[in-house]
Amino acid sequence: MNKFFSVVDVDNLSEIVKEALELKANPNANESLGKHKTLGLVFLNPSLRTRLSTQKAAMNLGMNVMVMNMDKDGWALETQDGVVMNGTTVEHIREAAAVMGEYCDILGLRSFPSLKDKEADYNEDLFNKFIKFCGVPVVSLESATRHPLQSLTDLITITEHKNVAKPKVVLAWAPHVKALPQAVPNSFSEWMCKAQEQGLVEFTIAHPEGYDLNEDFTQGAAITHDLKEALQGADFVYVKNWSSYKEYGKVYPVEGSWMMDNEKLAITNDAKVMHCLPVRRDLELSSEILDGPNSLVIKEASNRVWAAQVVLKRMLETIK
Amino acid sequence: MNKFFSVVDVDNLSEIVKEALELKANPNANESLGKHKTLGLVFLNPSLRTRLSTQKAAMNLGMNVMVMNMDKDGWALETQDGVVMNGTTVEHIREAAAVMGEYCDILGLRSFPSLKDKEADYNEDLFNKFIKFCGVPVVSLESATRHPLQSLTDLITITEHKNVAKPKVVLAWAPHVKALPQAVPNSFSEWMCKAQEQGLVEFTIAHPEGYDLNEDFTQGAAITHDLKEALQGADFVYVKNWSSYKEYGKVYPVEGSWMMDNEKLAITNDAKVMHCLPVRRDLELSSEILDGPNSLVIKEASNRVWAAQVVLKRMLETIK
Amino acid sequence: MNKFFSVVDVDNLSEIVKEALELKANPNANESLGKHKTLGLVFLNPSLRTRLSTQKAAMNLGMNVMVMNMDKDGWALETQDGVVMNGTTVEHIREAAAVMGEYCDILGLRSFPSLKDKEADYNEDLFNKFIKFCGVPVVSLESATRHPLQSLTDLITITEHKNVAKPKVVLAWAPHVKALPQAVPNSFSEWMCKAQEQGLVEFTIAHPEGYDLNEDFTQGAAITHDLKEALQGADFVYVKNWSSYKEYGKVYPVEGSWMMDNEKLAITNDAKVMHCLPVRRDLELSSEILDGPNSLVIKEASNRVWAAQVVLKRMLETIK
Repeated sequence: MNKFFSVVDVDNLSEIVKEALELKANPNANESLGKHKTLGLVFLNPSLRTRLSTQKAAMNLGMNVMVMNMDKDGWALETQDGVVMNGTTVEHIREAAAVMGEYCDILGLRSFPSLKDKEADYNEDLFNKFIKFCGVPVVSLESATRHPLQSLTDLITITEHKNVAKPKVVLAWAPHVKALPQAVPNSFSEWMCKAQEQGLVEFTIAHPEGYDLNEDFTQGAAITHDLKEALQGADFVYVKNWSSYKEYGKVYPVEGSWMMDNEKLAITNDAKVMHCLPVRRDLELSSEILDGPNSLVIKEASNRVWAAQVVLKRMLETIK
Repeated sequence: MNKFFSVVDVDNLSEIVKEALELKANPNANESLGKHKTLGLVFLNPSLRTRLSTQKAAMNLGMNVMVMNMDKDGWALETQDGVVMNGTTVEHIREAAAVMGEYCDILGLRSFPSLKDKEADYNEDLFNKFIKFCGVPVVSLESATRHPLQSLTDLITITEHKNVAKPKVVLAWAPHVKALPQAVPNSFSEWMCKAQEQGLVEFTIAHPEGYDLNEDFTQGAAITHDLKEALQGADFVYVKNWSSYKEYGKVYPVEGSWMMDNEKLAITNDAKVMHCLPVRRDLELSSEILDGPNSLVIKEASNRVWAAQVVLKRMLETIK
Repeated sequence: MNKFFSVVDVDNLSEIVKEALELKANPNANESLGKHKTLGLVFLNPSLRTRLSTQKAAMNLGMNVMVMNMDKDGWALETQDGVVMNGTTVEHIREAAAVMGEYCDILGLRSFPSLKDKEADYNEDLFNKFIKFCGVPVVSLESATRHPLQSLTDLITITEHKNVAKPKVVLAWAPHVKALPQAVPNSFSEWMCKAQEQGLVEFTIAHPEGYDLNEDFTQGAAITHDLKEALQGADFVYVKNWSSYKEYGKVYPVEGSWMMDNEKLAITNDAKVMHCLPVRRDLELSSEILDGPNSLVIKEASNRVWAAQVVLKRMLETIK
């Protein structure tokens, strides 16, 4: 594996989940694989779970880890070509990425969208240039449009906790106070659509009007504006807020009740409830669910390690 | 050991000091103990000595270390239950602590008091919730009311440098330009009171009127407002500023001279002078003492490693 | 080696370059040398290449690394003696350096000049005090007046890529939008002057009027204000901006064209073009050169690891 940026970078979903669960059962079995290899984690935006779980995964594989907080330890990067750099950007991504690639065997990069310029965000210009210029395998720690380590984690978690061969999975929009990126729902949706193709799940998306995701990520999903209808028979409910894609980055007032709570849980097939965290309690998701037996959020966060570890393991096998 | 938050977490003070000094004599003897174990250090406030010494101690034990600067790398935590999280706090401590506990075998936490709300600070609400929700052993890297790694360090240092079986130890208030927490003097006092009970020291506190510490921390100590009287026959003088507990967080003008200097040193039994650092030169403590033969401040800072290492070793032995 | 602060700390330049290239050929050959040894990296200013390459070098040698961002994780240091510390500085360098020396076997320090007070900057007061008080070997990660790891890197890179026994090396001033320190050109110049003495290169400096470097760093160099004249027959062109030394920290408007581009490259002996990075594209150096076959900038940055590693190796051999 040379790149882990979207679901396209994984062929067989069952196999990668199986391999991740083998690592979970035996975390240090491959620690010679990463000996003398260095992972560089580059953060253009803050991170808690992704930082710690990826660092832990790399250490389990025997790798060295170097963390670079570009917003605090570093400087503003120029991404455009043909620009006279007489402004505020201090270094061009051509040099910055190439240099990091000299020091590291694998690089991770986190970069959030602007939520202002849809085309620029969905072009994934920064990410693509970073991949192009650094010359080593790159794992996305969340980009403008996707969060693939989260989505792989989610598939691992669903696989572990399903009671039926092909569970019904519902992605349920939820309220928030801020305009959030579409990266997590885009990514979850493209992974679940592929999982549906491969016969692993049945996938439904429920969101208020105006919150349609980009269709590139939702091919094959059942989509509804009626949350209660979607929740009928659901085995897993994935709760997440996102801002509008169409009116890019906007937040509309919504009608009806979209916070996930026990009343809505009663409609489901005793569904397990998931969230990528951080979660706004009693705004996105009720405390009664988070503190109750149906919540998977902590187990889900815990599985971030195995998602990162299987991806790093496959990359290490490639560069050996 | 499952928790290191106050002197209550240690039964026999002589034994833990002896064990720490054995580690000092042979720092890497236990490096297989921490293999494949991860220490997470969570800083809600800045740190120099605590950060470096604890990291060093963990590495001596063969542990991996992950550092999390929550104020810079992370985000604001909600600690109250029953709150709709539609404000500035991004994640509830229930999730944040639980997730960190999934990635780490032992956690360290630093969190300073507000110095505004006495009850909230002295409740140690954040710390207690962190301990409750993370599910792994927690070592305090300084909390609102205590700094136990510092106090254990101080006891180790006194043990190493005492010339008599039961030295006289004086905690001497000193001036400062800022309102400082009571954590270090509270903690030093509760450790010295227990050391006095166990026959290891004789303990006196000297401070100006209005600077009484909370009595929970000073049971058994001789307390005086007359610094010179206190210094008579002193073998160790522990210099430290703190703000008022009674008029919480306030700083009063004080009468007389409270800065420790050579003139006052002459009253003592050629006392060794201690300070937890950072120290304001020629405000809290004179340069002549800091640069002279009676200062233990650097040796004291150096001993921070062995205090941290003995605590981590005991925790590793518990979770093995 | 007890100190790596300037070219004075290295006797034979050919030998250290040879040793560095042996490390490059076999990066992990000495990993037992640094076992149980700790490198502390102290940053008073931001860093990308220096941070990552020095960390990588230390890990190659089997060392533990602790990073301390004093501007963010730490606090303001007092460097003057005889000052009552009742202002904004929180800790005196006497204590801060001594304490770091207790926790680390080798320390690295980065500190930029003020560019306001020439005498204070060129005294290297902070650096000298840090060296004096920490009590362990210190490697400069760039100081007010020098960047010796960069200069050693540059000599390694020139040695690797030279086609003649004694190449002509030109240090060429280039435009910038900000007032930059003289540390890199000072350091490059003192290393090249010594390399010239030892018969390794022929060295020329070209800069506009008013941009003379301090003569202490340029003994033996040919100096001209005519860039085109300097470039004739050049085998290596080292492009760098700096502010005025004479009118300290000032930036003058310059006459003529000083940005390095293909037209000027045509004057040279098909010179290799170097820059310490970060580089302002199409302001200091043209994109056509940076993206063309004559640029060494990425290889140069890559060599930072071997410069750091040979220095750390020599220090480890000293303290063994």
